[in-house]
Amino acid sequence: MTRKMHLNAFLMGVGHHEASWRLPESDPYASWDVKHFQELARIAERGKLDSIFFADSPVLQGHPGRRPAGKLEPTVLLTALAVVTERIGLIATASTSYNEPYNLARRFASIDHVSGGRAGWNIVTTAGADAARNFGLDDVPAHRDRYERAAEFVEVATKLWDSWADDAVLGDKEAGVHADAGKVRAINHHGRYFRVDGPLNVPRSPQGYSLLVQAGSSQDGREFAARWAEAVFTAQQTLTEGQTFYQDLKRRTAELGRDPEYARRQLAERFGLDPELLRLDEPLPVELLPAEDEIEGAKSRFTLIVDLAKRENLTVRQLIGRLGGGRGHRTFTGTPVQVADAIEEWFDGGAADGFNIMPAVLPSGLVAFVDKVVPILRERGRFRTEYTGTTLRDHYGLTRPANSLELSPV
Amino acid sequence: MTRKMHLNAFLMGVGHHEASWRLPESDPYASWDVKHFQELARIAERGKLDSIFFADSPVLQGHPGRRPAGKLEPTVLLTALAVVTERIGLIATASTSYNEPYNLARRFASIDHVSGGRAGWNIVTTAGADAARNFGLDDVPAHRDRYERAAEFVEVATKLWDSWADDAVLGDKEAGVHADAGKVRAINHHGRYFRVDGPLNVPRSPQGYSLLVQAGSSQDGREFAARWAEAVFTAQQTLTEGQTFYQDLKRRTAELGRDPEYARRQLAERFGLDPELLRLDEPLPVELLPAEDEIEGAKSRFTLIVDLAKRENLTVRQLIGRLGGGRGHRTFTGTPVQVADAIEEWFDGGAADGFNIMPAVLPSGLVAFVDKVVPILRERGRFRTEYTGTTLRDHYGLTRPANSLELSPV
Repeated sequence: MTRKMHLNAFLMGVGHHEASWRLPESDPYASWDVKHFQELARIAERGKLDSIFFADSPVLQGHPGRRPAGKLEPTVLLTALAVVTERIGLIATASTSYNEPYNLARRFASIDHVSGGRAGWNIVTTAGADAARNFGLDDVPAHRDRYERAAEFVEVATKLWDSWADDAVLGDKEAGVHADAGKVRAINHHGRYFRVDGPLNVPRSPQGYSLLVQAGSSQDGREFAARWAEAVFTAQQTLTEGQTFYQDLKRRTAELGRDPEYARRQLAERFGLDPELLRLDEPLPVELLPAEDEIEGAKSRFTLIVDLAKRENLTVRQLIGRLGGGRGHRTFTGTPVQVADAIEEWFDGGAADGFNIMPAVLPSGLVAFVDKVVPILRERGRFRTEYTGTTLRDHYGLTRPANSLELSPV
Repeated sequence: MTRKMHLNAFLMGVGHHEASWRLPESDPYASWDVKHFQELARIAERGKLDSIFFADSPVLQGHPGRRPAGKLEPTVLLTALAVVTERIGLIATASTSYNEPYNLARRFASIDHVSGGRAGWNIVTTAGADAARNFGLDDVPAHRDRYERAAEFVEVATKLWDSWADDAVLGDKEAGVHADAGKVRAINHHGRYFRVDGPLNVPRSPQGYSLLVQAGSSQDGREFAARWAEAVFTAQQTLTEGQTFYQDLKRRTAELGRDPEYARRQLAERFGLDPELLRLDEPLPVELLPAEDEIEGAKSRFTLIVDLAKRENLTVRQLIGRLGGGRGHRTFTGTPVQVADAIEEWFDGGAADGFNIMPAVLPSGLVAFVDKVVPILRERGRFRTEYTGTTLRDHYGLTRPANSLELSPV
């Protein structure tokens, strides 16, 4: 077996399930408690997972009355986890639409230094007018404009990361020469969206730069990923052979007190529809939905949800139940062997190099995966028994990127 | 004695002295090594200091060939220190000119959560065209414009920090009510520089918000401080009675290999003069210097340096020597008793409530201060023996700010 399986834990508060905070085991204040996340990181590291991941948007998402809303800022959170872990990779989302490349490139370079080479940046353009209105705009920029800005943003960031040669710092006390100043260079980027002179004020980091991750699967998103991403997160439900869907999710959702009216409003908002048009016990009215190219944010998630509803002819209530635990991601349950089987089938079938593990409840769901499923994958020779490298790129089997500055003629 | 003395360690790489990195004890790579800063934080905490502080600018400062240039991004650094300390306050500089209020308010709120209420923000407007050129501008905005933006920036930040009432989060699992949604409110700020709808996506933090620190002493800076700052850092040389100046600084500077030509160019750049006009062994040509109101950045530091040169009729060489270890801050040496005497005299004389300790060499200078000088201040009843509070505001004797949201009519 030459392909290596990669496992990333996608962590969110006390779990991906909308109502996980209401379980007896859950601390409703955990979303802002660094100790909760440190425990999760240590559990994932115990399982030798490649990495853990935190999604984000610079806006208050969800209804604060109904579930924990708001989160620790992710670059702060990654740093707090870097200091108490040794090997696990640390990935967070940051927006290219609402940051400056100099500041964000510097933060990820700093986290890569602090973590000894374990930082990853999930590059997003940030959908949603509500986020835009926190940054001086009336509405979200057009999808295409966001992706063009994102491409230039990442170009600037990589130039900044390359603005120090790997061997620039000499530390020669005798000669009084701290660095070879010729190997620290301005980038003088003057583009459509950004003008940045550089150089960065952080030397090149252990990984060269943080792992670049991308998750959008729209046409623009795929183009962007093909250009920049080193790892791609995606949500797929369509490889149905061997899938074990978690059939009792709707029942569990109801047991945990999930409110169909709240969920119906959420779903209607995603589709840009009047909630009254979504009748809980009738099929999703696909004829009323906009086309993907009319959606200005989260295009691929929109299509995934609509396809799921069409494929399985789900009622609105069934669709809400299916989305409760995974928001459109594939969900399944079973014994540890069955879960391992499902993972192995997708891996061997060429559907993915690795998987995002998204426990409905945290930390218990992560503990169950690490202690029950990971050992089976190991026995089958599908997953590492020990970390063999030290950086996030090592875990993903990627080489450290060469410094483009070094390749330029002096 | 009702006034309490406050001691803050202003830390920079391996020390404030330009050539500290060349000492045998110094690690020339320490500026990017989180373990170095963790050691410094633990030393300061051992001394029960109020806080440690990191200055910053989003630009590569200094000549990378001559001294360690570049630093870990300060909000990342504060977080890495928060996790390994318990009580010491953690203050860093961040720019109001080159950040978005939503992002920065969120990061400081997050650090205040992660640290259990020990975060402080040193508010700066960032002087220098070189920084401006990392953010799409040709030159630094005018001094007055920067301060107007800063005032609106802090106004927006405090509104965001107040956008969650202190008692907004309920965590009521039985009722399925996570927060009282009426106590999480939009701020709908529409100002000259910023439009931010809010609310913040982080609940109100342990201190209410991070301690607001300000260091500029220009006229605009003083107005700003009077309005916003909860603690003010300042560099004063003029209360001369009782001062013990470090008379051998120039000799030490020369011994450590400091280059007068390099320093002369630095000084000329600060004054906007041709370096040839600065003759090392002649008095500073004050008649050639611009007036303070012609300086677009670091006005008060300019005046402080000029006043120092005039008052003591220093030659350029003497001025360079005086600036080498403290860049215009007061420097002195002596036995631990003499240092304690000098601090006590300024404190009792009503010149300050506290002091920034700026060791020329780190960590050894901080160890010497904590282990030799602090015990004397304690014996004299001038400084705490134990922390009596848990937050940075507690250390500074400040109350937790009331939430303005709660005071508004519902």
